[in-house]
Amino acid sequence: MKHAGSPTPAVNYAAAGAVETNLEYAALIALDWGTTSLRAYLFDAAGNVLDTRASTAGIMNLPRSAEQGGFDAAFDDTCRAWLDQTPGLPVIAAGMVGSAQGWVEVPYIDAPANAEALVAGIVRVKAACGVTLHIVPGVLQRGELPNVMRGEETQIFGALSEDASATDSGKPDDKDSSKRALIGLPGTHAKWAVVQAGRIERFHTFMTGEVFAALREHTILGRTMVTPDRPDTDAFLHGVNIARDKGQAGMLATVFSARTLGLTGELSREQQPDYLSGLLIGHELAGLEAVLAQQQNSLAGQHLRLIGNEALCERYRVALAQFGCTRAELVKHATERGLWRVATQAGLVNPTPQTAHAG
Amino acid sequence: MKHAGSPTPAVNYAAAGAVETNLEYAALIALDWGTTSLRAYLFDAAGNVLDTRASTAGIMNLPRSAEQGGFDAAFDDTCRAWLDQTPGLPVIAAGMVGSAQGWVEVPYIDAPANAEALVAGIVRVKAACGVTLHIVPGVLQRGELPNVMRGEETQIFGALSEDASATDSGKPDDKDSSKRALIGLPGTHAKWAVVQAGRIERFHTFMTGEVFAALREHTILGRTMVTPDRPDTDAFLHGVNIARDKGQAGMLATVFSARTLGLTGELSREQQPDYLSGLLIGHELAGLEAVLAQQQNSLAGQHLRLIGNEALCERYRVALAQFGCTRAELVKHATERGLWRVATQAGLVNPTPQTAHAG
Repeated sequence: MKHAGSPTPAVNYAAAGAVETNLEYAALIALDWGTTSLRAYLFDAAGNVLDTRASTAGIMNLPRSAEQGGFDAAFDDTCRAWLDQTPGLPVIAAGMVGSAQGWVEVPYIDAPANAEALVAGIVRVKAACGVTLHIVPGVLQRGELPNVMRGEETQIFGALSEDASATDSGKPDDKDSSKRALIGLPGTHAKWAVVQAGRIERFHTFMTGEVFAALREHTILGRTMVTPDRPDTDAFLHGVNIARDKGQAGMLATVFSARTLGLTGELSREQQPDYLSGLLIGHELAGLEAVLAQQQNSLAGQHLRLIGNEALCERYRVALAQFGCTRAELVKHATERGLWRVATQAGLVNPTPQTAHAG
Repeated sequence: MKHAGSPTPAVNYAAAGAVETNLEYAALIALDWGTTSLRAYLFDAAGNVLDTRASTAGIMNLPRSAEQGGFDAAFDDTCRAWLDQTPGLPVIAAGMVGSAQGWVEVPYIDAPANAEALVAGIVRVKAACGVTLHIVPGVLQRGELPNVMRGEETQIFGALSEDASATDSGKPDDKDSSKRALIGLPGTHAKWAVVQAGRIERFHTFMTGEVFAALREHTILGRTMVTPDRPDTDAFLHGVNIARDKGQAGMLATVFSARTLGLTGELSREQQPDYLSGLLIGHELAGLEAVLAQQQNSLAGQHLRLIGNEALCERYRVALAQFGCTRAELVKHATERGLWRVATQAGLVNPTPQTAHAG
């Protein structure tokens, strides 16, 4: 898949939507449909993004209830114009839309999971307008501490497709790469996946983002906090390093220091949010380091990839460097790339060479 | 100090309040004045509790604002009748009433701290009615992860006074005991204090209770939870043992299993709250174990004491047993005992022998 930022995109991302004429080349609608938002991408057959739509109609925020056709309404609002212009466009979707609270429940596939297993697990749902949506399954890792993901698996395969395009074969061949790699997806529920030979081998979930919000909004820690004008990197690093070096008692103990360092005058109100953020991300990385150590692995020296909000990924890059990991590369557009990859692998679209309609 | 439950109390606790005639022996008013409640104890000169009052007028819940005399109003509502009957009664108070948000800010004393230091740190405040309150300071432990307590220090000295009464000398002599001991105070902000030779040497705070409430009420984990009719000990122990044996990735990772074990059908909605509670208490104890290990100490084989809500302390006893600690003794009435001890040591009351007004 070629993309904005790739050397020779036929359609520039920034111009998408403005270049009306290209819409006639539309070949695929791809949906990233989560809990609080719905993002839609219109692709041409060469894998270029022709147009995008974003809506707040996540599965917990539909324009009307699911029973009253809320999913149909959200889908129509977002994609009707594209389908009117190009009837019969195939549609692929990933994310919480396939959960028990989604449009249709798509059973998890078990880890280790490769792209073929993902394709085999797709479940179809027919919209009221007659269009069939192909919904990508999430991944479940069984065990004493089970883990699940929905949506991230697609992003991970999007990031892996980068390996494929680097070989310029036009077809993903990352299965040839037998190197074990680590991919981090910071966020509300941060995921860390170990990938190898084009497969998600295992993964971990850290509720870092959601716990931060709960501590900040609903505990005594938030009462003395004032949001700073701009992030305070020193306070953030202070938290990361306390978690790394003095975190033995665990997060339940260290977080109290966001308050006590305020009481002793060592942390201003404006510094406390970034300090707490650093503490939690530091505990996440220390925990990741501990599970990597069980596999004779380590964060130090890792060449890993990050997927997600750029500002948040930048925080993780800064924190990772404190753990000796200085090669953390941000993967852009992993979601669209992954949706495109699964759609092509599922035969929903037949990719054409990039030059098909260039100029 | 003799107390309800002691072999020969002149006034039985259960009868307190009903035995009007004894109020003439009143010698001390002691207040346990926290954030959400105010508990008052009327003592005779032998250290018996003659009467008690409980109010919801904690410092964050005064009948009117502090500026409008809220502290005076709460104090009058609770203690006026006692003072009318016995004018000039000395008054001691401990807890958040001495915080920056309290009646008067009482500076922390530094750990290590003994009872003499506590007495020396008392700050007086004069109520509108002319009575002087003696407010006990909290304790601060400086360092990279500072710790503070307000109120718990008094409970700890109350628990230590038990050692003294065991020797039946009538005067606390626990300084003679050079054995290092561990005292746990489960709760919203659980404290674990190492005491030695009658001193609080150092202590740790775990925000276990408050984090549990925040996770339960304000994260996705609570959404699938249903409160069971009665606590589910198996689910609780499951959580404790996961934290102990599989907790390497840290609490941010393990808590997600309260959700995923529900998704895989291994944990019912009714089991999830106790499982999460077990996880958090398990992480607290694992963290405590880690800091004890740094001091060549361990939970296994400890003979420790617990202070606090009986049902919660029972949970901790069950959890501690999973860490090899089977001798965790509940200390009752530690708050009143501690207030009495500090008051006598401060010379606010001259203790008389128990038999002074027996019968």
